[in-house]
Amino acid sequence: MRRREFIQTLSISATALGCPQLIPSLTANSKLSSTKPGMKMHYEIKTLNLKYTWTIARNSSDVKKNVFVYLEKDGITGIGEAAPNIRYNETPESTIDLIQKAVPLIEKLNPWEFAQFSLDLKEIATGQTAGKCALDIALMDWIGKSLGVPLYMLWGLDPAKAPLTSFSIGIDKPEIVKQKVREAGPYKILKIKVGGPNDEDMINTVRSVEPHKPIRVDANEGWKDKETALRKIEWLAKNGVEFVEQPMPANMLEETHWIRERIDIPIIADEAVMTAADIPKLAEVYDGINIKLMKAGGLQEALRMIWLAKSLGLKIMVGCMIESSVAIAAAAQLCSLIDYADLDGNLLISNDPFSGVRFVDGRQYASARPGIGVKPV
Amino acid sequence: MRRREFIQTLSISATALGCPQLIPSLTANSKLSSTKPGMKMHYEIKTLNLKYTWTIARNSSDVKKNVFVYLEKDGITGIGEAAPNIRYNETPESTIDLIQKAVPLIEKLNPWEFAQFSLDLKEIATGQTAGKCALDIALMDWIGKSLGVPLYMLWGLDPAKAPLTSFSIGIDKPEIVKQKVREAGPYKILKIKVGGPNDEDMINTVRSVEPHKPIRVDANEGWKDKETALRKIEWLAKNGVEFVEQPMPANMLEETHWIRERIDIPIIADEAVMTAADIPKLAEVYDGINIKLMKAGGLQEALRMIWLAKSLGLKIMVGCMIESSVAIAAAAQLCSLIDYADLDGNLLISNDPFSGVRFVDGRQYASARPGIGVKPV
Repeated sequence: MRRREFIQTLSISATALGCPQLIPSLTANSKLSSTKPGMKMHYEIKTLNLKYTWTIARNSSDVKKNVFVYLEKDGITGIGEAAPNIRYNETPESTIDLIQKAVPLIEKLNPWEFAQFSLDLKEIATGQTAGKCALDIALMDWIGKSLGVPLYMLWGLDPAKAPLTSFSIGIDKPEIVKQKVREAGPYKILKIKVGGPNDEDMINTVRSVEPHKPIRVDANEGWKDKETALRKIEWLAKNGVEFVEQPMPANMLEETHWIRERIDIPIIADEAVMTAADIPKLAEVYDGINIKLMKAGGLQEALRMIWLAKSLGLKIMVGCMIESSVAIAAAAQLCSLIDYADLDGNLLISNDPFSGVRFVDGRQYASARPGIGVKPV
Repeated sequence: MRRREFIQTLSISATALGCPQLIPSLTANSKLSSTKPGMKMHYEIKTLNLKYTWTIARNSSDVKKNVFVYLEKDGITGIGEAAPNIRYNETPESTIDLIQKAVPLIEKLNPWEFAQFSLDLKEIATGQTAGKCALDIALMDWIGKSLGVPLYMLWGLDPAKAPLTSFSIGIDKPEIVKQKVREAGPYKILKIKVGGPNDEDMINTVRSVEPHKPIRVDANEGWKDKETALRKIEWLAKNGVEFVEQPMPANMLEETHWIRERIDIPIIADEAVMTAADIPKLAEVYDGINIKLMKAGGLQEALRMIWLAKSLGLKIMVGCMIESSVAIAAAAQLCSLIDYADLDGNLLISNDPFSGVRFVDGRQYASARPGIGVKPV
């Protein structure tokens, strides 16, 4: 390209996309970053009703109370969600405490400095990552809406590459398990909660309904000694289980490493990994990590974790808590970068207050709308 | 916020920023991602003239031949630059070979899948990160121009937070060193190249002109045994040097660790770190890392490295090769996240073919123009 042509190309670049409107929007963006900082915040608790009582290795529940956060500026509202988890000392109340602690940051926030905001959020309190996550999702939703693009576009990702999602079957009586498995027909992979006293029965019950469907298991730290865990995993592997998630308590790295050397199916870390800083030490112990927005404290940290895990050759799963389409739509933005999806949170509830994720042929697809792409039902 | 108000907020969100143009640009973006994939690519070699013959521990040069890459689609052109480095088996010719190898990828590239492109680029050849960097910068410049925002905005960064940049003084005769140090008046930190036979003379010569200016040193792997390196660093620390970069060869991790346990000033890895995968093993050996776009293979990988290093508590320096305002402007996009800047490449040449970085009071600031914000001089 000769210099003159090149200059011409540059001068027409502002009329990009055959779209003269981009020049004013450019001006508007410059204007935006110079407007007075500060965002307005609202939150509310919503009760999500579970289709079935939900039992995993450590507890049981019929409803889930999640906290929804709205960040507003310049007529744009970003939406976020916190799914507090008692495993991490989180309740709706502690989540609201965290959100209140963030008010001084939010009142002076320039949303375009969202990277710094994610660092500042880490500093205002230890833990309470669900609350931090709600604020981060809301801010990133605002950014995407301001630019007029879905977040996957902001991050250079192809939403069509979403992997199949698994659908979770909680621990329950055989008749209920059978019914759940039957109703899970549209889902192409099952994730079976184990770690209780009757793991083999759970699997046999599932297999009595679905003899060939791919199965993954999640022990949620339920096995407490390595010999038991090894025996269970060997049996599961023989019965066609694809991988096992968090077989032993998060702090038992040595025991988990001992197991890993003796089995052929992958072991995925869940409770053992919260944020990026946890990942390097896990690379020798686990084959992959389960990233959840609620543990990571938001979309920004989750994206960093994905790239770090990729650098270290770890498999990447993106999972969820019991959560509405808000948090699931946020996680779906990341799907083209991951190996395994476990994004069934919104499918487990009967009164999702939002929509914005398309479940098609076993996959959860992000919407093409800006930001995380959700709207109230 | 009540539900009705909330729905109203959502419905006006598309007229964001008081800017009705955002609705058409949204449409345009959707249109864009569905247009036929494929970008056009051009490249050219430009000879950059050095103000002074440039000598470091391993070699000497008067000119630098860099390769400039242009990626075009929909009337928008992104610009990138490769500064091939013989330390990494790179020449302008090998860089062009790499760029040619990427043509099949570029011809079918949907630019909005830029994350996947950065992964695909890694696969097409080992090494040749300068050529990969040129393509990555050009693509990200295109993305920023398409969205109408500088890249720092896309990444949520505040360009005003750029740290002071150091200015490099190459190894030379005392009279020339003195003259360079005098001419370096506007730069508030000097980076002195050592690792030759007369390191103490270099520092004394610099100090004879600037007794108090902050000094950092870069040995470029010049010291080959740990005792010599330790003795040199102890002397440098006593003479007020802030930190030392790459004292020993990159592969001498054990020796470098031995030194680190015996000195108080930070040791920064340069030649020992190329991409994110190298970082975890360096966390115990070095205090920080020098990230260069040319080593990382582009802006995307450099950003990932910054976040990874931050997670591990490493100090972050962003450095450069001898390069024009194109690559320096690209690196300047990242400046708010870093501890040390060493972005003097464009200041060392007399015929910079581009402009777009503002050097003010010792800092290199990114322009507010979209993408990397450069234009031809």
